[in-house]
Amino acid sequence: MLKVAILGASGFTGFECIRLLQAHPDVVITHLFTLRESKTDINRYVTGIKSIPQTCEVFDPKQSYDIDCLIIALPHTCVFPLMPMMIQQSYKIIDLSADFRLKASERYNMYYDIDHTCQELLLESVYGLNEFYADAIKTSKLVANPGCYAIATILALKPLTDQNLINHVVVDAKSGVSGAGKTLQDTFLYANANEHISAYKTNQHRHMAEFEENCECSMIFSPHLVPMNRGILVSAYIQLNKKQAIDSIARYYQEAYENAPCVRLFIQEKQPSTQDVVGSNMANITISHVSETEAIIVSTIDNLIKGAGGNAIQSMNLMFGLAETAGLPLVAQRV
Amino acid sequence: MLKVAILGASGFTGFECIRLLQAHPDVVITHLFTLRESKTDINRYVTGIKSIPQTCEVFDPKQSYDIDCLIIALPHTCVFPLMPMMIQQSYKIIDLSADFRLKASERYNMYYDIDHTCQELLLESVYGLNEFYADAIKTSKLVANPGCYAIATILALKPLTDQNLINHVVVDAKSGVSGAGKTLQDTFLYANANEHISAYKTNQHRHMAEFEENCECSMIFSPHLVPMNRGILVSAYIQLNKKQAIDSIARYYQEAYENAPCVRLFIQEKQPSTQDVVGSNMANITISHVSETEAIIVSTIDNLIKGAGGNAIQSMNLMFGLAETAGLPLVAQRV
Amino acid sequence: MLKVAILGASGFTGFECIRLLQAHPDVVITHLFTLRESKTDINRYVTGIKSIPQTCEVFDPKQSYDIDCLIIALPHTCVFPLMPMMIQQSYKIIDLSADFRLKASERYNMYYDIDHTCQELLLESVYGLNEFYADAIKTSKLVANPGCYAIATILALKPLTDQNLINHVVVDAKSGVSGAGKTLQDTFLYANANEHISAYKTNQHRHMAEFEENCECSMIFSPHLVPMNRGILVSAYIQLNKKQAIDSIARYYQEAYENAPCVRLFIQEKQPSTQDVVGSNMANITISHVSETEAIIVSTIDNLIKGAGGNAIQSMNLMFGLAETAGLPLVAQRV
Amino acid sequence: MLKVAILGASGFTGFECIRLLQAHPDVVITHLFTLRESKTDINRYVTGIKSIPQTCEVFDPKQSYDIDCLIIALPHTCVFPLMPMMIQQSYKIIDLSADFRLKASERYNMYYDIDHTCQELLLESVYGLNEFYADAIKTSKLVANPGCYAIATILALKPLTDQNLINHVVVDAKSGVSGAGKTLQDTFLYANANEHISAYKTNQHRHMAEFEENCECSMIFSPHLVPMNRGILVSAYIQLNKKQAIDSIARYYQEAYENAPCVRLFIQEKQPSTQDVVGSNMANITISHVSETEAIIVSTIDNLIKGAGGNAIQSMNLMFGLAETAGLPLVAQRV
Repeated sequence: MLKVAILGASGFTGFECIRLLQAHPDVVITHLFTLRESKTDINRYVTGIKSIPQTCEVFDPKQSYDIDCLIIALPHTCVFPLMPMMIQQSYKIIDLSADFRLKASERYNMYYDIDHTCQELLLESVYGLNEFYADAIKTSKLVANPGCYAIATILALKPLTDQNLINHVVVDAKSGVSGAGKTLQDTFLYANANEHISAYKTNQHRHMAEFEENCECSMIFSPHLVPMNRGILVSAYIQLNKKQAIDSIARYYQEAYENAPCVRLFIQEKQPSTQDVVGSNMANITISHVSETEAIIVSTIDNLIKGAGGNAIQSMNLMFGLAETAGLPLVAQRV
Repeated sequence: MLKVAILGASGFTGFECIRLLQAHPDVVITHLFTLRESKTDINRYVTGIKSIPQTCEVFDPKQSYDIDCLIIALPHTCVFPLMPMMIQQSYKIIDLSADFRLKASERYNMYYDIDHTCQELLLESVYGLNEFYADAIKTSKLVANPGCYAIATILALKPLTDQNLINHVVVDAKSGVSGAGKTLQDTFLYANANEHISAYKTNQHRHMAEFEENCECSMIFSPHLVPMNRGILVSAYIQLNKKQAIDSIARYYQEAYENAPCVRLFIQEKQPSTQDVVGSNMANITISHVSETEAIIVSTIDNLIKGAGGNAIQSMNLMFGLAETAGLPLVAQRV
Repeated sequence: MLKVAILGASGFTGFECIRLLQAHPDVVITHLFTLRESKTDINRYVTGIKSIPQTCEVFDPKQSYDIDCLIIALPHTCVFPLMPMMIQQSYKIIDLSADFRLKASERYNMYYDIDHTCQELLLESVYGLNEFYADAIKTSKLVANPGCYAIATILALKPLTDQNLINHVVVDAKSGVSGAGKTLQDTFLYANANEHISAYKTNQHRHMAEFEENCECSMIFSPHLVPMNRGILVSAYIQLNKKQAIDSIARYYQEAYENAPCVRLFIQEKQPSTQDVVGSNMANITISHVSETEAIIVSTIDNLIKGAGGNAIQSMNLMFGLAETAGLPLVAQRV
Repeated sequence: MLKVAILGASGFTGFECIRLLQAHPDVVITHLFTLRESKTDINRYVTGIKSIPQTCEVFDPKQSYDIDCLIIALPHTCVFPLMPMMIQQSYKIIDLSADFRLKASERYNMYYDIDHTCQELLLESVYGLNEFYADAIKTSKLVANPGCYAIATILALKPLTDQNLINHVVVDAKSGVSGAGKTLQDTFLYANANEHISAYKTNQHRHMAEFEENCECSMIFSPHLVPMNRGILVSAYIQLNKKQAIDSIARYYQEAYENAPCVRLFIQEKQPSTQDVVGSNMANITISHVSETEAIIVSTIDNLIKGAGGNAIQSMNLMFGLAETAGLPLVAQRV
């Protein structure tokens, strides 16, 4: 049994890792860590569940815990001072924050508007996009889990950008509210977020930094907040830079995802819906053709599973030689 | 045209007053006031609407504004220091906070856990329950608008408590989330409040103070938070202290609400739903009979209209000799 | 007082007309009509409201009712056999169905997949886009109210298509579920529609017929279903066919909507949200600039008000010489 | 590995069984059955998931399938003609319909308003309330899974009714909309069910038949429909027939649930919420004391898991000697 600990268990993402790992047949959760003493509400959820630690401990980066894997679910910049010590320990690390996702520290500084103070480890980390970087992930000591919009968007575009086929793309993205985590802002109050849709951060969202490093192309990125807890639907309206038949576009995706157990392709055939993936670690990608030079690619994921905790566990499975989908929910929740 | 000003325009209740008054054919909104200089987001809603002031002014209690009526929508205790000055002015006042609802200051101190510092005006104020205290409201200078749970509950019980017929009642109340206003608490975040129902403050809710003064009886009051913006449904499970036929119970309600244009009665006939009232100033009351000594009374209102701004405007109509329902929406929104 | 009747009062749109007209100070609702005898649930909403007929009558197209205006809110094709008789009567007609919106009957036949059997009246009807066709509406006997997506989209594009400035546009539209009316389909069941977003009818939606006749340009139209009752947000990603400064784009909109009391413009300044318009008859249009040849125009409306009943009443006001916004809600509901 | 088949895979409950069993480490799903040839939408959810059959077969009750357990998720009365044949086969059966829950066929006839045509098997079936009838379930060939309201309510009341301590109880129950399954009725359309709460079937709900057979006492049962997909919260307001200290009440529950891994007790300490259980197979029970003769017991469950598929799998675990919670989610989804 793999011994796994979670640092930052009280946020939505950290808690999602607990929830998913509780059902993983090859894993035992040995520790729930917080950065500092605090009254978290974690125990109202884990009370009486024997397979989960009932309380949180304060994490000590200098201690050599008897664990195989540490999953970090803290806000960005929190672990900068700790990471140099943690990386010396025997356990492997999966970091769900943005801190080790980018290779270029200046890009981090620009998008996150703060200096990256742990640049020396940037090149040691592997970007946890399992569908494209599995080999590097398998041998990595530090995996940086991608942002939720980044996973949905890069899975939709990379088979074409890798062929240099995109002239310009409009990405109109829609996300459920859990993407905002537990941010205490007026905007995220129920009575404000319920019963309306809004556009925000057009062409200014931080996840664009990840697009730039993984599937660069001329792009408008326009995210929207939708009144639902979970789910991302990304509609990519693509202008191709040379004529393509639908079959040829489809083939690029089929080849890219031939061995990807968590990606499903639908060619010209169905109406994409987050309901087909929410509750699971699946990404659905729908490929439609408007004309020989225009295609619409829609991808859908559960932002807290394939867009966060589930994708991290998929990386963990790769890092420790387990079946890639071990312990992961594959069936959508539907209702 | 009646000249009306609103003090505290940025909260949900104050804004609801603006929205309703904009459609009132006999009213002109002359001022939007705040207590102190602040960046409110009010103007994103009123931009370009010629019939509404486009900016907020800081209110001065010593100034004799050219207004007929001041509606106050501020948190409790805010106007204690100002009220003695305001009450000297020529305008009439409707206060939507809890500050002048109770006659007994000790009850206020106990339920609100703070000393009432303006007791001398308590006896001058009239409790704005239009269906029972219309005569006093018509001649009052200061009307205290009831709490939202209080309106729904008292309308459901008072016809029977006035006859001394209730032995014991369980009031199971369900409210939409806007009742919490813009309180920045984890509990009211979308991702926390959506997709679940919870019980809270069982037998400890502050509106119980208003029940005690207006329809005292042995009671359990058990409120619940429901994932919807608006609406209150109050189910009252009543043990009668003497046998009653359904007709006789119905008659007490029919007599009590004979001249109440905003109360609708349904006798043994329909399934109560907040959808039948939300968007309107109507209160629906459904009367069912379980046995000769048990009755179920269900009342439904829109908590921001009949439970707040709409009821206040109904009082205003009475105070200024207008038709009681002038300018008020009577048709539910349905969808 | 204008005497108004509604034919088709039991659907969402017809009911919305009742709700809005009840608050209109210059209107009396004289009749609620249905096409044939039926048990509608309309009376659970109008019970006890003295200003509204409490029951529905079966409509007779040959009868000369004492009404000024008949508002029709029936599914398409229902009134084909009746319209030739109705048009002979003295009252004016506003039809909310799609039947008289298009000038070219072949386009109707193609998009609606059924033959138009009342072509002779197509040219007599005026398309009820008040912001552009007010003069024709004022003198028309038959006004065809536009589709909800059509109003939102045409208001967003027409100032530029009228200048022939659009090379290509991606319109990504998001709508609340009430747009589907009371269609009994699995898709629209609460447990299916709640908590997810889906794309549907990409480039196949019927409202595209209206775009073609009113603001033709190369377009992808991609509608989405969002889990909320009301509201449409339309994001138009525009490739201009010649370079434009933001000021020059803004000027086209300012000129187009100079005298439009229900359109509000926001230039490069705010995050568009349906919350700013839902509950009102306002359309908000936000203009942003990505580059000299790319612009993003976002428009938001309440699909049942500005996208249906409210826009129809605005037309009615024009047809009968009332103030254009008489009786219309201008303040958004916010919560 | 246990071989399990599901008959009736296209409904919400049947699909929930697929979803849960996919994550069960000791189970392989061998067949998805339907009663008759039909185009179900099941394959849009299972496409590409290797551990699940990709298509549905028509079920033949005379065939001796190579399966250990058949889970039936069909509407009531559907399997009456088949059950006598099925019961002859070697596999064990768990029926999620109401058909074999009651011992008294007259009670079935009355509550379901149709004659029970398979009475001879009623006494062979065991009521699948795992917390109370585990011994009988372990050796049973046919288990009838309780109704969702029944599970929540009986778990809340039975520790006291078994002691004969309840004089009278008001059960005010609130359920998410998925409880209605895929019933195509106006009431369950999104635009009708969203943003409101309604009371329905007061004292007339069919699950009352199950209360009568398992925890009979004088009761008002008042269910409500709440705008959320999942979750039941049952508030039981109990009049005790003799004085009880809170400790003594708590002890009855502690003893009843001492060995129940899916029941959690909270004594006088927290505000119950469906969020603490939805997504899991846990039932939370909160015990509060109002006076020596009044207690409030609140129980919460996920209606599709502990109230349906999860509870059935818990029975299956017992029937086949697995750990009682094997493969079941124990951690709530929280968001």
